[in-house]
Amino acid sequence: MAINVTVWNEFHHEKTDEAVKAIYPDGIHAYIKSFLDKEEDMNVTICSLDEPEQGLTDELLNKTDVLLWWGHMRHNDVSDELVAKVRARVLGGMGFMPLHSAHHSKPFKAILGTTGDLTWGRNQTAILWNLCPTHPIAKGIPAHFTLYEELYAEPFFIPKPDDLIFGTWYEDGNIFRGGATFTRGLGKIFYFHPGHESCESFKNEYVQTVIKNAVRWCAPVELKDGFKLDGCIHQQDGDAPYKASI
Amino acid sequence: MAINVTVWNEFHHEKTDEAVKAIYPDGIHAYIKSFLDKEEDMNVTICSLDEPEQGLTDELLNKTDVLLWWGHMRHNDVSDELVAKVRARVLGGMGFMPLHSAHHSKPFKAILGTTGDLTWGRNQTAILWNLCPTHPIAKGIPAHFTLYEELYAEPFFIPKPDDLIFGTWYEDGNIFRGGATFTRGLGKIFYFHPGHESCESFKNEYVQTVIKNAVRWCAPVELKDGFKLDGCIHQQDGDAPYKASI
Amino acid sequence: MAINVTVWNEFHHEKTDEAVKAIYPDGIHAYIKSFLDKEEDMNVTICSLDEPEQGLTDELLNKTDVLLWWGHMRHNDVSDELVAKVRARVLGGMGFMPLHSAHHSKPFKAILGTTGDLTWGRNQTAILWNLCPTHPIAKGIPAHFTLYEELYAEPFFIPKPDDLIFGTWYEDGNIFRGGATFTRGLGKIFYFHPGHESCESFKNEYVQTVIKNAVRWCAPVELKDGFKLDGCIHQQDGDAPYKASI
Amino acid sequence: MAINVTVWNEFHHEKTDEAVKAIYPDGIHAYIKSFLDKEEDMNVTICSLDEPEQGLTDELLNKTDVLLWWGHMRHNDVSDELVAKVRARVLGGMGFMPLHSAHHSKPFKAILGTTGDLTWGRNQTAILWNLCPTHPIAKGIPAHFTLYEELYAEPFFIPKPDDLIFGTWYEDGNIFRGGATFTRGLGKIFYFHPGHESCESFKNEYVQTVIKNAVRWCAPVELKDGFKLDGCIHQQDGDAPYKASI
Repeated sequence: MAINVTVWNEFHHEKTDEAVKAIYPDGIHAYIKSFLDKEEDMNVTICSLDEPEQGLTDELLNKTDVLLWWGHMRHNDVSDELVAKVRARVLGGMGFMPLHSAHHSKPFKAILGTTGDLTWGRNQTAILWNLCPTHPIAKGIPAHFTLYEELYAEPFFIPKPDDLIFGTWYEDGNIFRGGATFTRGLGKIFYFHPGHESCESFKNEYVQTVIKNAVRWCAPVELKDGFKLDGCIHQQDGDAPYKASI
Repeated sequence: MAINVTVWNEFHHEKTDEAVKAIYPDGIHAYIKSFLDKEEDMNVTICSLDEPEQGLTDELLNKTDVLLWWGHMRHNDVSDELVAKVRARVLGGMGFMPLHSAHHSKPFKAILGTTGDLTWGRNQTAILWNLCPTHPIAKGIPAHFTLYEELYAEPFFIPKPDDLIFGTWYEDGNIFRGGATFTRGLGKIFYFHPGHESCESFKNEYVQTVIKNAVRWCAPVELKDGFKLDGCIHQQDGDAPYKASI
Repeated sequence: MAINVTVWNEFHHEKTDEAVKAIYPDGIHAYIKSFLDKEEDMNVTICSLDEPEQGLTDELLNKTDVLLWWGHMRHNDVSDELVAKVRARVLGGMGFMPLHSAHHSKPFKAILGTTGDLTWGRNQTAILWNLCPTHPIAKGIPAHFTLYEELYAEPFFIPKPDDLIFGTWYEDGNIFRGGATFTRGLGKIFYFHPGHESCESFKNEYVQTVIKNAVRWCAPVELKDGFKLDGCIHQQDGDAPYKASI
Repeated sequence: MAINVTVWNEFHHEKTDEAVKAIYPDGIHAYIKSFLDKEEDMNVTICSLDEPEQGLTDELLNKTDVLLWWGHMRHNDVSDELVAKVRARVLGGMGFMPLHSAHHSKPFKAILGTTGDLTWGRNQTAILWNLCPTHPIAKGIPAHFTLYEELYAEPFFIPKPDDLIFGTWYEDGNIFRGGATFTRGLGKIFYFHPGHESCESFKNEYVQTVIKNAVRWCAPVELKDGFKLDGCIHQQDGDAPYKASI
């Protein structure tokens, strides 16, 4: 059964900046859809901030298996109500992949519990090192590959990752925990730093491979009874897993 | 220099339930203060929900090094504004120790990013196992010790702990990750499950030892430059850590 | 392509103890093979200590993708030479699944770096709690299931697991980190505690499901260049990932 | 009570290479002792490979609280018997700090369970980034500091660290998990990469601070009953932590 992937984009730079428009004429979300569409096991929908209900109707959100999120200039325009819905869906099992400047998005902060603050600077050569080659997200990725990207660097205020998949080197002397996994409730999260609007990282084959791998890794798994996320469970005496013999 | 410890209590059951009042006549917060006061390196303040500014004035919060939090029936009465302040302080380095039913408190959820949902049930024999004997929080704690406590059990919806210090066994066949550490921003967090209002766990010497140890472990550390939590840092070209030779 | 699974068994109790023979007449290894054989993606070979080269010829070991190991009374009869070979294969990517009393086997100790010491006792009711329901190893497993097993309990001297999948409750008041993952080099390891020779845990459907899941999770992944495990790599000047422009 | 620190050195380069001798005329071990001796809470002993019993008599090893280890050319000359003794002491609680090329020493491999293989290359500018500023080992260390060091780089075949304290950037485009903690049994381990014999890193104030901090962090803690490392414990029926009432 196909994975329902939804790519949400703020879709601002691509409409207002000619240089960005030249790289992603239909928007970053449309570009990501274009390469995910080649995967038989993915069913991709795109949406953006200026659409009704900020792009994420309840119907769309509730059928989404994995949500990719790209935002930058308009983080604050996302409604707290939508953030609460996204958070609840992630805790309930929906995969979540904040990309690049989504480290400062409201859902990122609400789900990870931190500010996502980092150090940033000029676009430059960035070398991504594969620190976890046996992880499904790193499948098909060599020991290192090179991008031209905006500097995103330490200190990066994230919780300790479950797994640190990629570490990035920059010309200016910086490093970054640029690809990291987290779990919240039943949801798997992968933050991946490439994707500045004025760079072309989403056209890089390894970036595309990582995103495809991560979609599959993030996808919800079917669970047996006992893991519904609908509040605390009151274990009545008769329900105790152990009944002492009399 | 002494650690400024603030014990915040909802202070509800102790005023409304005679059985609870008999155990903790001045409130759980006052009782915790009574044993922390014996430590020379701790300077303890208590406060509660019905006081002005819900007990935590900016002045008190800003001088607090480690905040203990006990709440149960009135989680929703805590203002979102106060929760945001507590979260910001934790991310900035204040230690945070949610106790017992604070697993469902607003600060717990806002800081950890999860619901804190768990399974609960009748008071019963609980055996706490020391899974991390070399951790500072476990100092002086034997391989196991026994309490009579409310059942708090798995599934427990918390992020993967940094360290799992205690695992708890219950008569009814349940187990619980009952003592666990987390880091958020510059703040250290320790969740500890004992402390039901109708039990007497805060009078147990090992529970007291754990709380004392955890206060010291949670206390903020002095940091060198470069770790201020006041938003992202823009690294200007001249600030780059590495200057390639020309 | 099928996963080449090899089940190694000391095969001692089943030949010397009538009660054990009654449960596993052809040996624990043969029984495990019998349920793994039903999986289309697994190609299962069994072997045991008294066979030539202690059951693991170089040819067999080198084609093994995932090695299951059951030993108890005769750990010391396994040659150090074979242990070194098994360790090298795990570091090179072979999956490794030490079962039950293999916590004290030579390969377990050589690969994990610890003693594997634990507390043990009488056979009794054991309830396994699923602490990581979204992990591939826990697929299809409910929140808890019950076995009748030998007591294996904390303190358990293992390194901090990558993921703690199962925690076990025992009638006698003990708990155990009974299903835990580790990574060493390119190899994935899963320790799983059920499987005492006088109990019947390998006949339990959930135990079988966990072992099947873990075989798939442990199986080696194909890696790109840069991850060969044949000693340190000398990066010559011309090989540097970054060439500063002149 | 002072921490008994023992600094073991292979002591080869400093006797055979004039350039190294010029930097560390009395050996790296003597130099490390010289700055640790300034700490009132440390009692430092030095020893080296060519001394009787390879420098580590049972008496010295058994009274050592924290063992620092520097080796490079003569790893294979260290006897397996001594390695086994060191490993047993670490599992029993002794702190262990392998420095620089000790990533390939026999004790490192025996205790961590991996090969310690890495990529190495020419001496160059290395910038160490403080990824865990609230960890005791990072106390007093700024967000980054610069050394001139031998290239030690990823892929680095170590188990997933408990905490990744430092990540290192190199001119040649490489990064390295250069400061990492592990736990084995009751022993704490810190691997730290600076210290090439032809560089002067041990003279750097931050390197010295990190080593001092790590000695204190590694030092054994006093444990209550129940954690003796002398084999498995047989829990007799009468010893069960829980006695069901009749």
